[in-house]
Amino acid sequence: MSNPSQLNSVLDRIDADFDNSLQRLFALLRIKSISADPAFAEDCKKAADHLAKDIATVGFSSEVRPTAGHPAVVGKSNGKSSGAARPHVLFYGHYDVQPVDPLELWHRPPFEPVVTDHADGRKIIVARGAEDDKGQVMTFIEACRAWKSVTGSLPVDITMLIEGEEEVGSKNFVPFLEANKKEFAADFAMVCDTGMWDPDTPAITTSLRGLVYDEVKIKAANRDLHSGMFGGGAQNPIRVLTRILGSLLDDNNHITIPGFYDGVKDLPPDILAQWKKLNLTPETFLKPIGLSIPAGEKDRLLIEQLSSRPTCDVNGIVGGYIGEGSKTVIPAQASAKISFRLVEGQDPAKIRKAFRDYVTALVPKDCSVEFGDHSSAPAIALPWTMKPLAAAKQALTEEWGKEALLIGSGASIPIVADFKKTLGLDTLLVGFGLDDDNIHSPNEKYDLKSFHKGIRSWARILAALAELPRA
Amino acid sequence: MSNPSQLNSVLDRIDADFDNSLQRLFALLRIKSISADPAFAEDCKKAADHLAKDIATVGFSSEVRPTAGHPAVVGKSNGKSSGAARPHVLFYGHYDVQPVDPLELWHRPPFEPVVTDHADGRKIIVARGAEDDKGQVMTFIEACRAWKSVTGSLPVDITMLIEGEEEVGSKNFVPFLEANKKEFAADFAMVCDTGMWDPDTPAITTSLRGLVYDEVKIKAANRDLHSGMFGGGAQNPIRVLTRILGSLLDDNNHITIPGFYDGVKDLPPDILAQWKKLNLTPETFLKPIGLSIPAGEKDRLLIEQLSSRPTCDVNGIVGGYIGEGSKTVIPAQASAKISFRLVEGQDPAKIRKAFRDYVTALVPKDCSVEFGDHSSAPAIALPWTMKPLAAAKQALTEEWGKEALLIGSGASIPIVADFKKTLGLDTLLVGFGLDDDNIHSPNEKYDLKSFHKGIRSWARILAALAELPRA
Repeated sequence: MSNPSQLNSVLDRIDADFDNSLQRLFALLRIKSISADPAFAEDCKKAADHLAKDIATVGFSSEVRPTAGHPAVVGKSNGKSSGAARPHVLFYGHYDVQPVDPLELWHRPPFEPVVTDHADGRKIIVARGAEDDKGQVMTFIEACRAWKSVTGSLPVDITMLIEGEEEVGSKNFVPFLEANKKEFAADFAMVCDTGMWDPDTPAITTSLRGLVYDEVKIKAANRDLHSGMFGGGAQNPIRVLTRILGSLLDDNNHITIPGFYDGVKDLPPDILAQWKKLNLTPETFLKPIGLSIPAGEKDRLLIEQLSSRPTCDVNGIVGGYIGEGSKTVIPAQASAKISFRLVEGQDPAKIRKAFRDYVTALVPKDCSVEFGDHSSAPAIALPWTMKPLAAAKQALTEEWGKEALLIGSGASIPIVADFKKTLGLDTLLVGFGLDDDNIHSPNEKYDLKSFHKGIRSWARILAALAELPRA
Repeated sequence: MSNPSQLNSVLDRIDADFDNSLQRLFALLRIKSISADPAFAEDCKKAADHLAKDIATVGFSSEVRPTAGHPAVVGKSNGKSSGAARPHVLFYGHYDVQPVDPLELWHRPPFEPVVTDHADGRKIIVARGAEDDKGQVMTFIEACRAWKSVTGSLPVDITMLIEGEEEVGSKNFVPFLEANKKEFAADFAMVCDTGMWDPDTPAITTSLRGLVYDEVKIKAANRDLHSGMFGGGAQNPIRVLTRILGSLLDDNNHITIPGFYDGVKDLPPDILAQWKKLNLTPETFLKPIGLSIPAGEKDRLLIEQLSSRPTCDVNGIVGGYIGEGSKTVIPAQASAKISFRLVEGQDPAKIRKAFRDYVTALVPKDCSVEFGDHSSAPAIALPWTMKPLAAAKQALTEEWGKEALLIGSGASIPIVADFKKTLGLDTLLVGFGLDDDNIHSPNEKYDLKSFHKGIRSWARILAALAELPRA
């Protein structure tokens, strides 16, 4: 049990110690823990070691645990459980980050964090991982540190799980979870990897789109050909690939793969009405990124296109000569990476199969196609009645002075489905990211205010959770 | 004037000196003269220096002459002109080569030439440039060397022009030609950069397709975006690009750009009948490259698709994340390199404009498009009545023991149009390349027989040309 004066002391401590919190975040940001690129495997290990040491200083017993891929960090709070009245929370985050290319678009080296000024005057922390997910994870760790240093203990029991392969689909982390499910038993999970509604309005995410990520390689001739000698007679795999990819959306931006929308439901009218009131316009949402025309289904609101409707995006394409100048080549192959954001009712395995059937049917008989699996995850809709939700909503509202919103997110956090499936846990999704954080892009940033008030928010949420009866 | 016994002595000398000819070719092949990549500018200079020295040993007065790009080599035979009875020939070739990527597909380093065995037992020279155009150029130089060493002179007056930017469109060579047109006056031009009909049948090329090479860059958002946060609402430039490129050909493989076929004529019935007899089938032409279905206009013969019909090929495409693994990015931009092979009646400037208009009309209003010029050249049809043609045809027929064919080529050799326009010269196109030489591809080769009998062929052609009356 905590009391209001304890919480106030903790919040004061957070303010007083904030410069040190920032330095601890910077130390983590300097580690190049890019999980997608095998060249950075040692850096991933280094980030895990660093975090294990860091949470040990907060009083967690911590270990770096091997998986079949990059290791995971496991921390357990040492506070004695006060029995049935004290909830046990599983906190999840990830220390791995996205690749940094195109490097030339960064204004500063991505692993040399700084605090600088945003064009509109906001103070921002700039580095790869500043938000996703190192900055967000550190809001929680620093909140725990403040509680521990002021009161000598934590308001709830906490198991911390910080993995190193979220950005590449958690393929090895999920079996690790499965193999240790007794050890990770808890009342519910918490994840700090989502966003606010806007810079002043906190939010809890209650639904997440799913993901299917596939790779397609079209092979034509057995070698690169000279287009003067063979052009016109020999098939060009870029032509085949662009023809297929170019046909995935029709003139109304509906996805053309047969069966793609099977099971997709319209929003309940009351939710749609609420969303309309949020008034998410091209002016507010697209203008900051230099666009003006919603690119999704023409018969849907922009907020539906972004949150409740499935999508198809080509995330990468390459074929032929891509250097300087010109080369009159017909390449032997061309490939693309394609991902689909899914909503409730869509089965990732069925979507992957429908996509592959669609592609295969369009490949000329003397060409071949190869597919490469990447991650997949179903969409998630969390129960609106989940007990910690109201407690967290109240805590966030108090910290930010504005009512916290319950929102749907366009992004996938596949681990949320795995927590439900493996450990039987629902997940509370609280985060302090903003739409303009450039996550997965050059010049990723995290508002200094998000980091500071994020720590304070978690301190309040921990206090509020302590009041909950155990399930 | 030459006589038959002189020619026989020259041919004997070629056979006796062939190992040395090969070593001289190897020395040239070892120089990494890739004109497209600025990193190899010094190597281009080195190749020019090397060639200037080499032709000096044949008795040419030679110079390396600066251009606004890579330098050109100019050589002049020192034999005294015997007046009106002795033709003056301008021989053209290029020392620059194509880039070598993808390097991992080469079986050996591309600039370490070797003689090895083809799968079917033919001896082949393998290296970048083995055929295009170092091997071909050296057939002519070695023929001159044999004539000079046996008779002390050359049968005709020769100006040699070997440039270093053919593979990047000769942008700087053409102004050089223009600036020195008096110096390069001659009776006709000869180029050794074309192919035979098959490994046993020599050919003279009498028509060449033209070329328009363009680059398209589509720009959408002002930065890379996370597809979870923005997917569905934000435009994806790869989607825009693939949609445009995928629409360039219809279901019958006709090019859809309005006006593209304006001015294109059908073949005269007699030529079409001759071509039908050549019986170029998918089995003979496409099977060796691993294909089986002609990819051009469905209502045309394969030989028409390859020689007398215009084409459209995407030569390169790139956008988004192309590394290992997956990244859920919506990139800020995507680009492609596109080329068109043109035939007689098509104006390169009009085709480029029609293509750009077509693309521009399909770009969403909140995206932008940028174009990048690369080379262009009109198609060429050489006069069938040109005097050196019959002489060269007879010489080739004697060397190979099979009647030399007059053929159309799908490839462009833009300089041929420039010789006509700038110097008023028609061009005799003789070469010894084969369809399976892998030019512009990994493992480029030149048949040892092409190199050897190519030298002998030029020796015979030079003798035959000496008999021609001057125009």
